[in-house]
Amino acid sequence: MKTSGFSFRVTARRGNARTGVLTTPHGDILTPAFMPVGTQGTVKAMTPGELAAPPLDARVILGNTYHLYLRPGLEVIAAHGGLHRFAGWPRAILTDSGGYQVFSLATLNKIDEDGVTFRSHIDGSQHRLTPERSMEIQAVLGSDIAMAFDQCPPGDAGPPEHDLAMARTTRWAERCLKSTRPPGQALFGIVQGGPDAARRRAHMQEIVSLGDFDGHALGGFSVGEPLPVMYALLDEIAHELPEDRPRYLMGVGTPPDLEHAARAGIDLFDCVMPTRNARNGNLFTSEGTVVVSNAAHRADIRPLDPECPCETCRTTSRAYLRHLFMAKEILYSRLATLHNLTFYARTMARLRAEIAGEHTAA
Amino acid sequence: MKTSGFSFRVTARRGNARTGVLTTPHGDILTPAFMPVGTQGTVKAMTPGELAAPPLDARVILGNTYHLYLRPGLEVIAAHGGLHRFAGWPRAILTDSGGYQVFSLATLNKIDEDGVTFRSHIDGSQHRLTPERSMEIQAVLGSDIAMAFDQCPPGDAGPPEHDLAMARTTRWAERCLKSTRPPGQALFGIVQGGPDAARRRAHMQEIVSLGDFDGHALGGFSVGEPLPVMYALLDEIAHELPEDRPRYLMGVGTPPDLEHAARAGIDLFDCVMPTRNARNGNLFTSEGTVVVSNAAHRADIRPLDPECPCETCRTTSRAYLRHLFMAKEILYSRLATLHNLTFYARTMARLRAEIAGEHTAA
Repeated sequence: MKTSGFSFRVTARRGNARTGVLTTPHGDILTPAFMPVGTQGTVKAMTPGELAAPPLDARVILGNTYHLYLRPGLEVIAAHGGLHRFAGWPRAILTDSGGYQVFSLATLNKIDEDGVTFRSHIDGSQHRLTPERSMEIQAVLGSDIAMAFDQCPPGDAGPPEHDLAMARTTRWAERCLKSTRPPGQALFGIVQGGPDAARRRAHMQEIVSLGDFDGHALGGFSVGEPLPVMYALLDEIAHELPEDRPRYLMGVGTPPDLEHAARAGIDLFDCVMPTRNARNGNLFTSEGTVVVSNAAHRADIRPLDPECPCETCRTTSRAYLRHLFMAKEILYSRLATLHNLTFYARTMARLRAEIAGEHTAA
Repeated sequence: MKTSGFSFRVTARRGNARTGVLTTPHGDILTPAFMPVGTQGTVKAMTPGELAAPPLDARVILGNTYHLYLRPGLEVIAAHGGLHRFAGWPRAILTDSGGYQVFSLATLNKIDEDGVTFRSHIDGSQHRLTPERSMEIQAVLGSDIAMAFDQCPPGDAGPPEHDLAMARTTRWAERCLKSTRPPGQALFGIVQGGPDAARRRAHMQEIVSLGDFDGHALGGFSVGEPLPVMYALLDEIAHELPEDRPRYLMGVGTPPDLEHAARAGIDLFDCVMPTRNARNGNLFTSEGTVVVSNAAHRADIRPLDPECPCETCRTTSRAYLRHLFMAKEILYSRLATLHNLTFYARTMARLRAEIAGEHTAA
């Protein structure tokens, strides 16, 4: 990796899959790794201590530039010396560029070659993001890994829109690379191109040929394309991303998605699914998805998942979780989120062991 | 105390105030003590582990018979062997009788000498509570301390209503005493009588003369009467409750209320104020109440209360708390509740030290 303080070492290979250690100024990340999403300066319902404690043991969380820029605002985070100290999180942070939220959450006023003018989804106030501004904001946030500002086409975009987004994303990537970053902040480039392999490969070559990115991400996945399309595309292109740098699949996905993508060569993942599904009552277990509101759980004294070592499964029953959910108790969201994130973390640990050829319990 | 497994030992006196140790089958409670309210089988936003950890170190929590009877329902809690195991709380539990909620939350259909018929505030279903039924429910909950089923007059009740409630509460107390309780469950009687000292004293004598209660409670306080009325009444009657058994002031109050009542001779307290105020953005500190949404805290990197040893004050800034509150993040309620309950616990610890004549930091 190009940036001082970072390194990526592949430790084992199995087909296109690999395990690795991504070293950052805020600690090592064992890959393939899942990054819990901390949209507004908190992984919803969780404390930093809970995220870091084994077996969950999150090594890196994601922060959202768009959300944090709008609220609490940069001067608040700057007063704390960055997002790590604002949120009390001592391990690594990756920030997105704000692009995805601008294109999905905000009211867009103008997209031009220079950047994007939009209205806040909170109060309607008008703001502008450009590649340079995104890098400035991420510098204030002080994340370990910043993402290049890209143009994200909608899920139903056609080839002309993809071509436009690819070309612009490349030019914006060059501008991000030219921006000054604080010491100890790496920068990842983003590959767009939609569901077509030739387009993906062409854009990958453009982004990779810029040469200076510390890692590479695949954007614009899981935006509505059929699962076989996503899987086939990942099989074809993920392993073609540079071997010596981390590969990050943005915003994906279910545990089977992560397994498939890791086998295709992906190292890093993020998704709101484990945290959001937890709050909505959908829990991942070794016996399949548990819909916690189901009346079958009403008086069930068994743990949610007998194979799970998380505090929720060690100390509570399905009936208690269902009761807390039905009564809209805050403790439900805590216990459910802890479990779902632990399930994801255990899925990644199992994948790492499998790739490394280690014996592991199913 | 009459019930096996319980004892109350006064360890120090100062005027009418006293410190004591209330021994229960689920551990010792140092009095004066504040009991966090766990309405629906959870002290809102908190885990049992957090409640039990010093400096909060809650020794007893309150469970609400009315709420738990309606949801999740008795057979669910019975399947777990009681509320302790359902909620994962290994220390002591006091349950109220359901009377207060029936008279304040439910739609009342009929009050007669036998009991109360009401409609659930959740689904409108019709239910009936009598002294015997309340004791049966509390037996299933398996609390350490059950409360007698009483009739609670509204805050604006006049003398005739108080006289009626007193007489009926006495007759219901006798029926509660005659009910079978599970081994290891104590029973406290409740004194009504409204804001008039003579009436309070008369009812106290009736309840105390029944002889068999393990402790005595003052009900019907903090229902709208002026603070000087409450304080004067407590000064006059609290110390007249039996000296050798715990005295419990139900549903009160602010930290100054607790200080005043403890000096008048009260040993046990419960109130939703620390937990509810926390969630609503009102935080108790050594420098007075902090309204967390106040713009003054926007970029304030100082801890909420520099004198507080709780995790919230040790690890977060006022700005971070304000941000989480404004963004409606679940983590806010957790951090705020932990702090407010710790403030109450520290208030009680300071009072105990003061009564015992021990030197303590302000």
